Amino acid sequence: MAINVTVWGENVHEKTSELVRSLYPDGMHRCIADAIGEDAEIEATTATLDQPEHGLTNALLDRTDVLTWWGHAAHGKVDDKIVERVQKRVLEGMGLIVLHSGHFSKIFKRLLGTTCSLTWREAGERERLWVCNPGHRIARGLGPHFEIEMEEMYGEPFGVPEPEEQVFISWFEGGEVFRSGCCWRRGNGKIFYFRPGHEAYPTYYNPSVRLVLRNAVHWARPEAERWIDACPNIPVEKAPEKISQKGGTIHKPGQAGLR
Amino acid sequence: MAINVTVWGENVHEKTSELVRSLYPDGMHRCIADAIGEDAEIEATTATLDQPEHGLTNALLDRTDVLTWWGHAAHGKVDDKIVERVQKRVLEGMGLIVLHSGHFSKIFKRLLGTTCSLTWREAGERERLWVCNPGHRIARGLGPHFEIEMEEMYGEPFGVPEPEEQVFISWFEGGEVFRSGCCWRRGNGKIFYFRPGHEAYPTYYNPSVRLVLRNAVHWARPEAERWIDACPNIPVEKAPEKISQKGGTIHKPGQAGLR
Amino acid sequence: MAINVTVWGENVHEKTSELVRSLYPDGMHRCIADAIGEDAEIEATTATLDQPEHGLTNALLDRTDVLTWWGHAAHGKVDDKIVERVQKRVLEGMGLIVLHSGHFSKIFKRLLGTTCSLTWREAGERERLWVCNPGHRIARGLGPHFEIEMEEMYGEPFGVPEPEEQVFISWFEGGEVFRSGCCWRRGNGKIFYFRPGHEAYPTYYNPSVRLVLRNAVHWARPEAERWIDACPNIPVEKAPEKISQKGGTIHKPGQAGLR
Amino acid sequence: MAINVTVWGENVHEKTSELVRSLYPDGMHRCIADAIGEDAEIEATTATLDQPEHGLTNALLDRTDVLTWWGHAAHGKVDDKIVERVQKRVLEGMGLIVLHSGHFSKIFKRLLGTTCSLTWREAGERERLWVCNPGHRIARGLGPHFEIEMEEMYGEPFGVPEPEEQVFISWFEGGEVFRSGCCWRRGNGKIFYFRPGHEAYPTYYNPSVRLVLRNAVHWARPEAERWIDACPNIPVEKAPEKISQKGGTIHKPGQAGLR
Repeated sequence: MAINVTVWGENVHEKTSELVRSLYPDGMHRCIADAIGEDAEIEATTATLDQPEHGLTNALLDRTDVLTWWGHAAHGKVDDKIVERVQKRVLEGMGLIVLHSGHFSKIFKRLLGTTCSLTWREAGERERLWVCNPGHRIARGLGPHFEIEMEEMYGEPFGVPEPEEQVFISWFEGGEVFRSGCCWRRGNGKIFYFRPGHEAYPTYYNPSVRLVLRNAVHWARPEAERWIDACPNIPVEKAPEKISQKGGTIHKPGQAGLR
Repeated sequence: MAINVTVWGENVHEKTSELVRSLYPDGMHRCIADAIGEDAEIEATTATLDQPEHGLTNALLDRTDVLTWWGHAAHGKVDDKIVERVQKRVLEGMGLIVLHSGHFSKIFKRLLGTTCSLTWREAGERERLWVCNPGHRIARGLGPHFEIEMEEMYGEPFGVPEPEEQVFISWFEGGEVFRSGCCWRRGNGKIFYFRPGHEAYPTYYNPSVRLVLRNAVHWARPEAERWIDACPNIPVEKAPEKISQKGGTIHKPGQAGLR
Repeated sequence: MAINVTVWGENVHEKTSELVRSLYPDGMHRCIADAIGEDAEIEATTATLDQPEHGLTNALLDRTDVLTWWGHAAHGKVDDKIVERVQKRVLEGMGLIVLHSGHFSKIFKRLLGTTCSLTWREAGERERLWVCNPGHRIARGLGPHFEIEMEEMYGEPFGVPEPEEQVFISWFEGGEVFRSGCCWRRGNGKIFYFRPGHEAYPTYYNPSVRLVLRNAVHWARPEAERWIDACPNIPVEKAPEKISQKGGTIHKPGQAGLR
Repeated sequence: MAINVTVWGENVHEKTSELVRSLYPDGMHRCIADAIGEDAEIEATTATLDQPEHGLTNALLDRTDVLTWWGHAAHGKVDDKIVERVQKRVLEGMGLIVLHSGHFSKIFKRLLGTTCSLTWREAGERERLWVCNPGHRIARGLGPHFEIEMEEMYGEPFGVPEPEEQVFISWFEGGEVFRSGCCWRRGNGKIFYFRPGHEAYPTYYNPSVRLVLRNAVHWARPEAERWIDACPNIPVEKAPEKISQKGGTIHKPGQAGLR
């Protein structure tokens, strides 16, 4: 059974910048989908901001195991309804891989609850990503470190909750460090943030970056049944142990919880 | 130097339910503030939904070290602007203690990013809270467990991110369990969720519950300077190591990051 | 490619207790191996205390993906050299599933570094295990909870490091709770502790318990290449960035680190 | 009430190396104790390997709130009985601050259960420590980063369990990174690992390093009563809920648990 991945791309710089277009003539999302699709077990589809519902229809999400997200110039143009829809899917079990400037996307900030802020500099610096968790699924097939010749710098403090698993930490030529591969679980969904991917450089052609993307899909795929969080009332007569009603009540029998 | 605590209460059931009014004639917030104020190192103030800005003015938040939050019937009436304001303060370092039905408050769901769902039953059951982290500040002065004679049941799965520290787990007469004392750090602020406190019962008069509230204030108070997350650009000439500009650029010099 | 599991059993009560022998005529290890072997993707082998090297030869460990451990009466008889050997394998990537009274085994205490203590009572109580992480691999195929009609009680506080993922929490008839399904990663190996399994009861015939064992094997299997921790010196001329030697030195060139 | 700190020093290089003696004429432990003692709320005492019981008598540990540990050349000479004694104290609530080459000390490896391995190079490189958790007690009073002009390099992967809180990450001139400020809780005790402190350089005179040491003492001090882990049996008649004995038994009434 194939793993179905939807690669979401903002697809804005590709239209407004000659530089980006020259690097990614078919769009960054296409390049990312190609990288992921090199794995025979994965089917990769793309969706972009300019499509109806940003391409993220319920029908597509129904068959999406893992969603990847690249956005930058148009975070504010993403419809809140779609963000809510994606959040719901992640909490039910869909995996999410957030890329580079996606740290400031609505979906990432909403799932993590923090500023997701950082420091940054666009100077084509050398980035060296160190593996700090060599037994992790996402590090499979990598050596102790890999390099990207030119990248935008992102520096600490990275305003996110403590990662549950730290896979990579980056060293930058200009003197900064960054937690560049971070894992969290939210609800039943797994989230991976992967730092590299500035649109001004050919990062998504880097073989190690491409391997990490494929590994991350395998890690983030759902592990169990989709599970819906309904806040059910358990009536007294259905309590696992036999009990009887005591004390006063606020809720009427069968009433839904207050939200 | 006193620790300044603001006790926020929804103060709705107190007006609509004779039962709640009889238990808490001055409001649940007043009872909670009294419990916390028994500690000579703490100054406790109250604020309620019906006040302008729900009582949570910038002036009050400026001098609030820890905010406690009890809400239930009117989560939807809390103004999103105030929620955003409180979230910002927590991320800058203010402590937050979320009580009982506050699990479905906007501020809790926004900071945690998940459904915060659970199962529940209002049957006046016995709840026994077990201490699973006896060396934790919030467990100071408690024995191995304490009981509440009548409480609403909350059951697993609790739809929250994995707690960073688990202080209490509850046993319920009807057969369920619940992670009833959970700690997280978000940004620079510390968050404690404490399960007990259904409005139909005299829970906030229970001496162990009151001790936990005071302990939690001490734990949640800010530990360092207030810190603002600004996503600053670090220009090439201010890089910690001497570097020179390479490659193409998308951002203009001095331009703010894209949000 | 099959997942190779070695089921280690102490095999002492089976010889000394008529009750245990009547429940597990071929040994508890055999019953556990049969439960795991029901999964067509898994090959299960057994090893016991009374064999040379406790059955845990280097040859066997070389081809073991996941080791399960049940011990109770003879923790002290396990050779420290074998414990060291197993620890090394776990840190290199082998999965470890520790069962019930194995909480006091040398290998579990050594990998976790804590007392691994708890409270207990042998009274044939009803245990109900609640799933608190329904999207987790180990919970696949289970409902919201499952029951074991008679079990030994284990109660909090459980003296272990904060679990990295909490899969199950148990409710006991006598009034206690326990974190009965806990995940940790140590080095490159994944560790799962699963509480049920007292030798006086037919727990390992329970279908939900058997399903959890199979799920746990899938979760704990190695995710990446085996990785050896050698504390290598990186000479100046092999530093990723060009640097030159500065300051005084304590170590001679090429000298190994001090242990 | 003062916080009582015991500064443990191996005190070997000071006797064997002219370089170390010239930097630390009274011993590294003396310099560290002076740094910590600058805080009026702290009383700092020293203890060294060459004293009876390595200076770590029960009487001294009885009044020690936080122990700091620097060792390198003589890890193997530390008596296992003393290691066990210190471990027991930490699990009961004493704080532990492990410094630099102490990553390979018996006590650190025993409490964490892993190899505690890393890569290293002694070349007097510039180290820049970035604060990734600016609201943490240990970061109080520091700016976004601080530098040490000459230090030994330690590189990832650092063979430790995922830190519960990451306070610092280091950048090295030669191209490596390292998780240089890590927090864990083990039992009731808090553990902080702080990377800098190679004996060939004057690191412990650096004002930021000294501030971190003082901050870490405040963070690591016990938060609640000392708590002993005894694995008590809870007899049927003392169960919190009324139950009666069912099923067969292995343990005799009143028998201690098997270890």
